[in-house]
Parts: sequence; C-alpha cells; structure tokens
Amino acid sequence: MSKEKIEWYHDFIDREYKPTDEDLVALYYFEKSDEVTVDDTIGRLASESSIGTWTTLETLDDRIYDMRGRAFWNEDHLVKIAYPLILWELDNIPQLMSGIAGNIFGMKAVQNLRLVDATLPLDYIKGSKGPHMGVEAIQKIFKKKEGPILACVPKPKIGLTVAQHCQVAWDAWTGGIDLIKDDENLTSQSFNRFQDRVEEMAKTRDKAENETGEVKDALINVTAETHEMEKRVKLIHDHNFRYFMVDVVTTGFSGVQTLRNLAKDLEMLIHAHRAMHATFTKHYTHGISMYFLAKLMRLIGVDNIHIGTVVGKLDSPKEDVLDMRDLLLKKEISEAKGRRLTQSWGSIKGTLPVASGGLHPGVLPEVLTVYETTDMVLQVGGGIHGHPDSTHGGAKATIQAIEAWQEGISLEEKAQSHPELKKALEKWGYLKPI
Amino acid sequence: MSKEKIEWYHDFIDREYKPTDEDLVALYYFEKSDEVTVDDTIGRLASESSIGTWTTLETLDDRIYDMRGRAFWNEDHLVKIAYPLILWELDNIPQLMSGIAGNIFGMKAVQNLRLVDATLPLDYIKGSKGPHMGVEAIQKIFKKKEGPILACVPKPKIGLTVAQHCQVAWDAWTGGIDLIKDDENLTSQSFNRFQDRVEEMAKTRDKAENETGEVKDALINVTAETHEMEKRVKLIHDHNFRYFMVDVVTTGFSGVQTLRNLAKDLEMLIHAHRAMHATFTKHYTHGISMYFLAKLMRLIGVDNIHIGTVVGKLDSPKEDVLDMRDLLLKKEISEAKGRRLTQSWGSIKGTLPVASGGLHPGVLPEVLTVYETTDMVLQVGGGIHGHPDSTHGGAKATIQAIEAWQEGISLEEKAQSHPELKKALEKWGYLKPI
Repeated sequence: MSKEKIEWYHDFIDREYKPTDEDLVALYYFEKSDEVTVDDTIGRLASESSIGTWTTLETLDDRIYDMRGRAFWNEDHLVKIAYPLILWELDNIPQLMSGIAGNIFGMKAVQNLRLVDATLPLDYIKGSKGPHMGVEAIQKIFKKKEGPILACVPKPKIGLTVAQHCQVAWDAWTGGIDLIKDDENLTSQSFNRFQDRVEEMAKTRDKAENETGEVKDALINVTAETHEMEKRVKLIHDHNFRYFMVDVVTTGFSGVQTLRNLAKDLEMLIHAHRAMHATFTKHYTHGISMYFLAKLMRLIGVDNIHIGTVVGKLDSPKEDVLDMRDLLLKKEISEAKGRRLTQSWGSIKGTLPVASGGLHPGVLPEVLTVYETTDMVLQVGGGIHGHPDSTHGGAKATIQAIEAWQEGISLEEKAQSHPELKKALEKWGYLKPI
Repeated sequence: MSKEKIEWYHDFIDREYKPTDEDLVALYYFEKSDEVTVDDTIGRLASESSIGTWTTLETLDDRIYDMRGRAFWNEDHLVKIAYPLILWELDNIPQLMSGIAGNIFGMKAVQNLRLVDATLPLDYIKGSKGPHMGVEAIQKIFKKKEGPILACVPKPKIGLTVAQHCQVAWDAWTGGIDLIKDDENLTSQSFNRFQDRVEEMAKTRDKAENETGEVKDALINVTAETHEMEKRVKLIHDHNFRYFMVDVVTTGFSGVQTLRNLAKDLEMLIHAHRAMHATFTKHYTHGISMYFLAKLMRLIGVDNIHIGTVVGKLDSPKEDVLDMRDLLLKKEISEAKGRRLTQSWGSIKGTLPVASGGLHPGVLPEVLTVYETTDMVLQVGGGIHGHPDSTHGGAKATIQAIEAWQEGISLEEKAQSHPELKKALEKWGYLKPI
C-alpha cells in the first residue's frame, strides 16, 4: 500500500500489518461520535497521533507516508495502533505524550477516548534511565529483608509548625516507622518553611536513629518550579537524607525527568505522589490509565509510586493494583485484553509500589494479603495519628498489625497481648484477611 | 465555630461564612456517590483539599482548624469552597494544583468532580509573574495594528526533513504568514534534528524578511526534559528568534514556570500548545476546565495559548472560547453561574488567544466574527498546505480571506478577483459570516 497523497483517514488503517519489534504499539478504548464510522474514527486517531492532518496534502511523500501510525487491530471499543520508532525522540517523555496522548483526546470524532497502555519497544526503553538503585538496594538501606517499608504522613496534612511536625515525626519514627512523609500540598508555607523543616527534621532523625538503632529517613516534598526544586533537593541532600518526595503529576514530566537526573547525581531516591492523576485516570472510558502513568514513572526512574490500597478512602480496584504491582516490580509483563499490553523492561530497574490512603492497623493484613508481596511501601497517616494513644501508639499498633500478618495469626489474637493494636481495632474495626 | 477535634467532615461546611478578599475560592461541579449525602461529599472535598484527613486527630489545634477549607455555598451539583491564603505557597503552581486539584479527584465519595474555576486573590496573583511583554508589545513587534497575527504549521505535522520544513516555511512566510509553528510532536528526531532546524530556519527567516520587508518569526518546539528545554531556548535565542513554543501540559507546570523565567531573561515569547489537555478537560462533569488551565497559563506567563476555534476538527463550543478570550485579554472578569468566577488580574499582563485546528480560508471570517477581536493568533495548517496551489497559494488565500472580513465583503465576492481564494473555496467550501 503506497499512495502519493493521504486521501482518506482510512489509509491509516492496515489490518494486514504486523507490528515489528521496533514499533511502539498503543492500546486505546474509544467511543465514537454518531457522525462518524468506526473506521473513520480509528483512522483519524492513527493520523492525528502521528503524521496526519485533516486534508489532502501536496507536501506528503512516500518516506513520510511510511512513518504514519497504523490502526492494525480493533474489536468493539478497542483499537491498537502501531507507530514506527522514528516518530519518537528518546528520553523525551513529554514528546511521547504529545503524540499518543495529545490532540486526539480533543477530536470531535470521539466522545470518549482512553489511552490504556502502550508497549514501548526495547530500543525506546534503552533511551530512558529508569530507577538508578532498584528495589533490593532500597530494602538493604532500610534493613528490610522481610516486611514492607513503613511510611507515615503527619496529619493534619497541612498546618503543623516545624516543631509540631518534628514531634509527630519523632513519635512515629520511635514507634517503628521508617519514613516520615510530607503530604502533597505541604511545600514551603509561612507556618512551616521548607528550609526550617529540613534542618529540624534532620536533627530529629539523628536522634531517632540513635534512640532506635534503626535507619530513618523522610520524604520531604520538593514540589515547585524546577530550579527551586533542584535547590530543595540539594538542601535535603546536604542534610543527609537519602530520599525526597515530589508530586509528579502537578510537577509534570519535564520536571520529573530533571529530578531523576539530579537524584542519580546525588545518589538519592524519589518518592512519587500522584495528586491530580484522577483528573484523567478515574474513568475507564476516558483519559489515560493510572497503569500507563505508572509505567512512565518507572521508565523515567522514580523509586516509589502510589498505586492504591484496594481498601481505603480512594478508588483502587484490586485488579488495577495488582496489574501495577507487577508493572513496577517485574521484568516481563504479559498482555491482558483491554487492560494491558506486553512489556519487556530490559535493564530498567524496579520501582516500589506504595499503598496509601485511608489505611489503619485493622486493614493492613488485608492490604498485604492482596498485594501478595512485601516489596512495597505501606503508608499510614490518619490511621496512626488518630490512635487513642496518639502517634506513638498508632505507630506501634501499625507494627503489631504487620507482625500479626507475618506470624499468620488474626488481629484479634494479636490484640490480646498488644494494647495499642487493641485500641486501634476498637476505634476503627478491622477486616479479616481473605 | 471552633472545635478541638474534627469529628465530622461537616465541620468543613459553613454556610454562614463570607469569603474575604484574601481567600482563594474554588468552584466545583460534583456528582456524589450513592453511599454519601451531599453534605458528606462537600465536607470531604473541603477537607481533603486543605488540612483534612479521614479520622479524628489528637494533633489538631485551633490555629490549624482555622486553616481549613470551608464549603460555604452549594446548589444542585455546584459547590464553592473558600481556602485561606496561608495554605498556598506563592508562585508555586504545582502546589496549588496538588491542593485544589489533587487527591479529591480520586475520592470514592465522588463519581464525578470538575474544577470549574477558582478566584485567585490579588495577594496570590501578586506572587506570580504573568507575561512579561503583553499583547500590545507583541503586536507592535509584528506591526499588526489591525488583523490577527497569522501562524502556520508545516504539514504533515511530523516527517518533513529540515530542508522540506524550510521550503514550506519560505512558501508560507513569503505568502504573508508571520509565524511558522512546529507541531506538538516535532521536537528533535533523526529526520529533523532540533539544532539543524533552528539553524536553517534562521537563514530562511532572514531571507524571507529581506524578500517581504516584514517581520517573520518561528514557533520552534522546545518540549523536553527541563535542562534540555533551556538549552534549546538558548539556541533559538542565539539565532535571533523572538519566540519559542512548548507543549505546556505534557511538559508540566514546573517546567513551564522555569521557561517563563528564562523567557523573561532572554526577552523572548512563549507560544503554548495544549496537547493532552483534553484528557482532563473534555467532559463537563469531570477533570479540570480548559478555562482554569488557561487561567494558570496566563498567571505563569505564557504569551499565546490555544483555546479553540468554534469551527474545525477539535471540540470548542463558542461560549467556552469567548470566556477564555476574555479571561486572557481582560483585566476584570465577572462571574457566570457554573461557568466562571470573578477574577481581578491586578498588574498581570494579557496573553494572546490562539485559534487553531482544522481551519481553512473558507471558515476564517466566521472565526474572526465569533472572536469579535483581532487580538489573537490565527493558525492554519492543512488549510494552507492542502491548497491546490500548495503552501504559497494557501497562504495567499488565507490573507485574502482575512482581507475580505476586514473589508466587510463576502468570500464569494473577494474570490472573484482573487484566484487563490477561489481555489480554496472550491476545495473546502466556506461558511458565511453570521
């Protein structure tokens, strides 16, 4: 098939085409508008996301025509489009998204459109960096051969002074928590300036490490304009933290790529909060899947990313959470129709999934059972600080709940000899492990 | 109203509350889940987007309690929430979005949620920079006292070599077009390297300026990792372009803020492409409005942003386009129920709206009539290059269509003495001005 001009969008449909190992293949869910046919729609999608435009052109030649996206498979509301690698600039994630997640979402031809997943060919993957450390290396730092790494967000999520923040951190660290995390909307405000928080948290951390003999760290939120973020990361590094945290969606792909490079230079780790993702991930009929966002974040090289809890206050169906767990931790991913495509990660290292949002001791065994792994970060906020014995008691109850799961006994049984857990269960109830 | 603890989300509802001039007020559209009441829902929204968490806390004091978001008005599916200024770090747009457009979108309590608009108080606005040049100064550069600034994207949107790209640019520039724009997915690929494109386009521009005696510029796409973007902007600057272009959504807020600072230092202008916006702006029931995204972009300080055409291949209802035109150009914005809130821009300068997407000479008078102003950039791609006499003829037909509108005559009449316009109308048809 070769034409001098693209006369119709249907030239972007080629059901005989077999994608090569060098093609980037995207899977979309779509609902077409009434005025167009299915073929009109998928042809337009393949066109607008690659070389196309809406009219016949004199400027088109065969070389460019061969660079077009090809819709090569469709069934019901699903379509797969293959894109030659030459369309994409390596290690430029915004450019990729401007193509496969760009103008097509605004087209009148679609009522709904969702980028479900894309298989990134190995030659594309090789252009990216991925996490520089990897899951085992992180677990080694925190001496976590068994059990998840535990994080805790001081609550109220915003408003605490530096002194209050450090007091909560002290209570949680000495109660057994590994990481104290800022929440997504705490950056540098008048009641809690960034520099003061870093300085005081570093002192508190040193004391907590001395007190417990354990490794303690913080996930301090650097989210800001890019150069300001870089300054903040360096300040954190100068205070001997190994980690920093960033709101990856509101910061944006360019900034996250920049932070990844800095994290490598400083041998630091990135904890990714995903605030704002649900503006485009929430509905299964439109937007971009959380799964694909998580894929991009592993590709760029964040070390932790939130993917949901199954239980708790935020949406997170079990199937999605397990798909993302595998996506972040495994080397090879298989296809599941309409949900995900194959993906080989090559030499890209793994990213630790984070379970967070409305957790308390009574649900932790359920979360661990669902996750089927302890290669994860488990993050509890209100479910620690809301404890009747306050943060220190809540931290202990959290550790006790995880111990119960590790020991294979029920929370009820464990609570009989552990008063902190007992009080937590009395306040919040609990779920029995499935 | 003051409590030691937040016992219920209903503490975040205060219908007696009158927002002060220092409050940031957000307007949301919401559809609640079946399990919760309206008050549960709006209380949770105000809580999770400010200080809140999901359980009672020992760590909460009156000072922090006074920092909470307050749902102070609701009707049908609309709610307004007031946030004290202290919650927000000035000039940190990602932080703002992590609050008012963050976790709340993932809450189970809402089936749908849309951030429609937010009134940014003057004390917040003052922290931001806005465009450094302003609309009149840009028009002065291009000697456009009357008529829109005209931009043209070489098509196919991706695939042209540098030589082909420059040939198209020459044809369009000498046909009367002011700006040659890269499309959103062209950055630096093997067939058209960024540096080569900049160097050759600069030579072509110099020739076109000599040939025409007019001011010519290009909107070369710098989208990439942040430091790479900065390098690219500097290269463009070194080649005496006044403008650069960036995909603001896929780049992200942090990167756009960084580019704004650089643009000021180099006295350059930013042309903002909005690829990916429709992943969260398309549906009126969920996500973030294009209107609010455009507001943030003026606040940060881009000089042009695409807001739709009313006619053409991409969604853009007339009412939305006119709202955004005013938002970008005016100093004071009035409220329109469910659509927009009041906004004073203080000393923030204006941003030129860009009409783009599926335009051709036959629809341009309609677009200008709808816009009711020529303070705009009018961008045509396929509607120039698809012309039977190719790009040069298409550019001339575009100019002729605008002249017809300025002269108050019909396209049919103008076409009688202008063969390029005649051919364009024969190929694409036309709309009569309303």
